[in-house]
Amino acid sequence: MRVLVIGAAGMLGRKLTERLANDGALGPDAISQLSLVDLAAPHPPDAAFAVDCTGADLSSPGVATRLAAARPDVIFHLAAVVSGEAEADLEKGYRVNLDAPRTLLDAIRGCGDGYRPRVVYTSSIAVFGPPLPDVIGDDHATTPATSYGTQKAMIELLLNDHARRGFLDGIGIRLPTICVRPGKANLAASSFFSSIIREPLDGRDAVLPVSTDLRHWFASPRSAIGFLIHAATLDTAQLGDRRCLTMPGVSATVADEIEALRRVAGDDAVRRIRHEPDETIMRIVGGWPHAFDARRADALGFRADADFDAIVRVHVEDELGG
Amino acid sequence: MRVLVIGAAGMLGRKLTERLANDGALGPDAISQLSLVDLAAPHPPDAAFAVDCTGADLSSPGVATRLAAARPDVIFHLAAVVSGEAEADLEKGYRVNLDAPRTLLDAIRGCGDGYRPRVVYTSSIAVFGPPLPDVIGDDHATTPATSYGTQKAMIELLLNDHARRGFLDGIGIRLPTICVRPGKANLAASSFFSSIIREPLDGRDAVLPVSTDLRHWFASPRSAIGFLIHAATLDTAQLGDRRCLTMPGVSATVADEIEALRRVAGDDAVRRIRHEPDETIMRIVGGWPHAFDARRADALGFRADADFDAIVRVHVEDELGG
Repeated sequence: MRVLVIGAAGMLGRKLTERLANDGALGPDAISQLSLVDLAAPHPPDAAFAVDCTGADLSSPGVATRLAAARPDVIFHLAAVVSGEAEADLEKGYRVNLDAPRTLLDAIRGCGDGYRPRVVYTSSIAVFGPPLPDVIGDDHATTPATSYGTQKAMIELLLNDHARRGFLDGIGIRLPTICVRPGKANLAASSFFSSIIREPLDGRDAVLPVSTDLRHWFASPRSAIGFLIHAATLDTAQLGDRRCLTMPGVSATVADEIEALRRVAGDDAVRRIRHEPDETIMRIVGGWPHAFDARRADALGFRADADFDAIVRVHVEDELGG
Repeated sequence: MRVLVIGAAGMLGRKLTERLANDGALGPDAISQLSLVDLAAPHPPDAAFAVDCTGADLSSPGVATRLAAARPDVIFHLAAVVSGEAEADLEKGYRVNLDAPRTLLDAIRGCGDGYRPRVVYTSSIAVFGPPLPDVIGDDHATTPATSYGTQKAMIELLLNDHARRGFLDGIGIRLPTICVRPGKANLAASSFFSSIIREPLDGRDAVLPVSTDLRHWFASPRSAIGFLIHAATLDTAQLGDRRCLTMPGVSATVADEIEALRRVAGDDAVRRIRHEPDETIMRIVGGWPHAFDARRADALGFRADADFDAIVRVHVEDELGG
């Protein structure tokens, strides 16, 4: 089985690469070739199968055609300009998040010889914007409040149409906010959800810009990789013509996060969190989803973390060596 | 006020042109200039204001830029490849129904000098596909079952994002199935909804390919023009960031249609309808929407026909000289 990962150098791309290298297989099928693509060539993992690494921009002419010509059996599409950048640079956002994946779908269709790969597209709960119900069902309208969410929702539609017409075997998965993100804090409005856990566990202070009753929808990086693997291997006949799914997650308040941190690392860790309300961030995150009833994904066997304690434990195990 | 109609030679485009010429105004504003665009230059109406007619393809390079450069205050976008053709010719469908309106939005944004026209985009209930609830609410997910519906749903998202970012004052209206369509029967799966009324009223036979308990969602051409005018003139501040709306309509079965025909034209007219079940058409239309709870549009003052009798009367008055 030949596997292609586009956006392999990002946080999830690196973890997915690691998992594929460890497993040596995707479901029942041994991997024979892993192709990793990102703007700069990703680092190859230690693996028992062949790995090629390419630095390329999917939105550049010819790149998608070349990638499809190698006939990967499974394609993971993870590449994206993140929310803040897509908002700041409209044209770049539409080029990378809309035109580039569209080019990939066109290139697959263009093969025209019955080639029909599994395409796993990473969408996001950013396809949902206010006003929202407290619990969002699988049939709720996509109402993005950002250009990023708009681009994700547009590709969901395009993927669905290409799957319906038989050009590819597509599945789109709407990832929850990934928490705890490893690495440094960034400028994303959501950054604090991770930093209030990550920084205290590392003996550093963290700033909380919102009130503790804010509720949101989370999955650990490990669960997100589990979603990707499951999406690549499940029987898509179960999806019918609706190929895009909200992933399960943990609905937790910031207070729930803090109490989970306390249980893992004690009061001293919690005292590292400094409350500094930020009106701008509160306004942005105030419109975000609180919880989903992701019953289609549940029924299809996608599994989230049990609770926020589990999310903290994943971080300790996977990033802090237990 | 300068008004631009793209797709002015189609059935709705011609009726909209006629209405604008008759009214001489759009809401409180007198029309100073009406620009009509279609693939072949539309015929100019008799009007008290200046009219220019252009034959141009919006998907051709430079056309959108030229149209935006004239700074119309209101733009009606009606141009589309219909459902059957978008299904038969995928690339043409995406070029005309996705790329062309996107080019228009890009061109408006590209003006970059505060130009912010009202853009009325005609979407369709084809953005909804099976499985569907009996009555579809305003928050229901778009799940198109055709490439046409996919393209409409994608432009809805793009229009919304461009409105949110302040590049234009957009509104997308999802039209019901227009009934009674004047003119000849066509190859659309929906053609019979109109022909079983239109042909008997004209003393000709009509074929009914589905069972009489099939329910669907209708508006007369006159109501559709009313929707367009209202969308061009209402206060869009009421829409918030959700710029696309399902239009109200009449939920009627084929039996309701037939009884309305009987009340207007008697048993002889009804006897003109010959029942010839067609499995292919039944399968296609079986997944179509039955009814909507279009309460956002209702609250905003969009008004549908009272019932199917009213729809038949509109046809008699507007197409058959009363």
